[in-house]
Amino acid sequence: MELAQILAPIHADVEEVERRLAVSLASGLPVVAGLVEHLSQFRGKRLRPAVLLLTARATGTLREEHYALSVVVELIHAATLVHDDVLDEALIRRKVPSLNAKWDNEMSVIFGDWLFARAFDVLAELQNQDATRILSSTAAEMCEGEMLQISHKFDDHLGEEDYYRIIGQKTASLFEACGRLGMLFDRDHAAWGGEIPAFAREVGVAFQIMDDCLDLMGTEAEMGKSLGTDLTKGKPTLPIIRLFDTVPPAKREELRQFLFANGHPDHRREVHSLLVRHGAIEYALSCARDLVARARGRIRSLGAFPHSEVLEALADYVLQRSS
Amino acid sequence: MELAQILAPIHADVEEVERRLAVSLASGLPVVAGLVEHLSQFRGKRLRPAVLLLTARATGTLREEHYALSVVVELIHAATLVHDDVLDEALIRRKVPSLNAKWDNEMSVIFGDWLFARAFDVLAELQNQDATRILSSTAAEMCEGEMLQISHKFDDHLGEEDYYRIIGQKTASLFEACGRLGMLFDRDHAAWGGEIPAFAREVGVAFQIMDDCLDLMGTEAEMGKSLGTDLTKGKPTLPIIRLFDTVPPAKREELRQFLFANGHPDHRREVHSLLVRHGAIEYALSCARDLVARARGRIRSLGAFPHSEVLEALADYVLQRSS
Repeated sequence: MELAQILAPIHADVEEVERRLAVSLASGLPVVAGLVEHLSQFRGKRLRPAVLLLTARATGTLREEHYALSVVVELIHAATLVHDDVLDEALIRRKVPSLNAKWDNEMSVIFGDWLFARAFDVLAELQNQDATRILSSTAAEMCEGEMLQISHKFDDHLGEEDYYRIIGQKTASLFEACGRLGMLFDRDHAAWGGEIPAFAREVGVAFQIMDDCLDLMGTEAEMGKSLGTDLTKGKPTLPIIRLFDTVPPAKREELRQFLFANGHPDHRREVHSLLVRHGAIEYALSCARDLVARARGRIRSLGAFPHSEVLEALADYVLQRSS
Repeated sequence: MELAQILAPIHADVEEVERRLAVSLASGLPVVAGLVEHLSQFRGKRLRPAVLLLTARATGTLREEHYALSVVVELIHAATLVHDDVLDEALIRRKVPSLNAKWDNEMSVIFGDWLFARAFDVLAELQNQDATRILSSTAAEMCEGEMLQISHKFDDHLGEEDYYRIIGQKTASLFEACGRLGMLFDRDHAAWGGEIPAFAREVGVAFQIMDDCLDLMGTEAEMGKSLGTDLTKGKPTLPIIRLFDTVPPAKREELRQFLFANGHPDHRREVHSLLVRHGAIEYALSCARDLVARARGRIRSLGAFPHSEVLEALADYVLQRSS
């Protein structure tokens, strides 16, 4: 199913978030306005706000605050995207030149900081201590995951456990926060037993595994962003970790040198066929499928509730997306 | 007077902030701990916490919250320093290699983000809405000042008004915030008529003018950080703006090409003598002196109050510092 179709029941909510996001990004400074205008060209899928809004509608009443919180979450996500662009030196993101290809790294770093500051500014206006605590600690956790990943660049001994820790922190923590923020005003949320945030976290982990697979296997035309950057930057993602595990120890160093070579299209094709031959991509995809199955199981375990089928469909979408 | 001597009356307070800062920076992640350890080697002057603590003691009672707020302010400042290092590609800061010389840019960008996130995490624990709003909007303002400055790189037509706007946003806004945060719990703060935040702002502007002069005129041995980076990065600071104003329009482009050339020591010396010959440095220093005089005048206008002479001495220190 297309994402728009899945999210049709909350279409008006997502549009409201969109309107508020535009207001939060408005700036009288021409330089900032130019950056914001550029950013708007690669409008994302708004998956995180979708999780937050759906959770809110599923577990209680959607309130004004949920719109503002969705804006904050999307601003934090946008800040990390802008900084990731600098870090990955990615030239293309969502089919338009990435910020740092058009402006320089300096501007991209500070613009990312500004998005982050704006997020906390919108949050401050809300005056909700629980939300503020959830999001400030999540932001720190996301950075810790990124730093852990950077510290393992070109590491052929990174284990699956470390990989899951990294993506849990850098990606899934914000999904989990969306689940928690959606339920923030639900007085009976203890009754849900933490299943919703756990669901959101698993969806986030699956999302990142898929993202990592797409970086290795997708086409730039479909994905609309630079691919293969994980390998050139030396990031061992799940398929790569699996590949290392399937070769004899004596061959490991040779493989390492080959994989993390600076990749031109031929190299990408060779890595691709190696990953397929050793079942490494299939393995990673099966891990993502397992996570989504577990996440969907959590929703089912809660019995019938509003939008439960939308949450399940959203989890499934993560496995099917090609961009 | 030495800074330590000036701040002797609040020595114990600054030490308490230091202890709490160490706690806030503690991390179980070895990679983060390593970065924090390195950061601690270039412990700054803690000027901003000093303004906050002095203001608190001057206008009321020093409370627990003031220590935490000082930690937040210093974390935000540290985050901007780390990102500035990336932007300036400065190799040496405070006599030890800067973060991005030792680690790479990637790690420095995310570590700066982490410091920023930690700042908002400490702030969230305080549960003070006014403080949260002051600091989140200040953080955004600081970024706007930086972006405005970057957008005027190599611009020989930047006017003094724009320069003051830039440094007001990127530097003085945090000083002003310290003044406001110090007075946060003073119920009669209307009686002070905004003089304390205005004082702090002027001190901040003077501080940045001096910093910009030192970048042009100081010695790296004294300053303990890479100098001359403003010119090589094309930042027109006050002495440079003054210099442009003193040459005939026909010579302007020639001067621009000369000034913003990639500077080796000879070039630095030539720029130095040009600035002295045209009285451009003396002009900038006199602007800083005027600001400090105005700031001190504000303190005097308030009559006698605790630590007023320390605030005045701190303002004076900004003019005298050589590092």
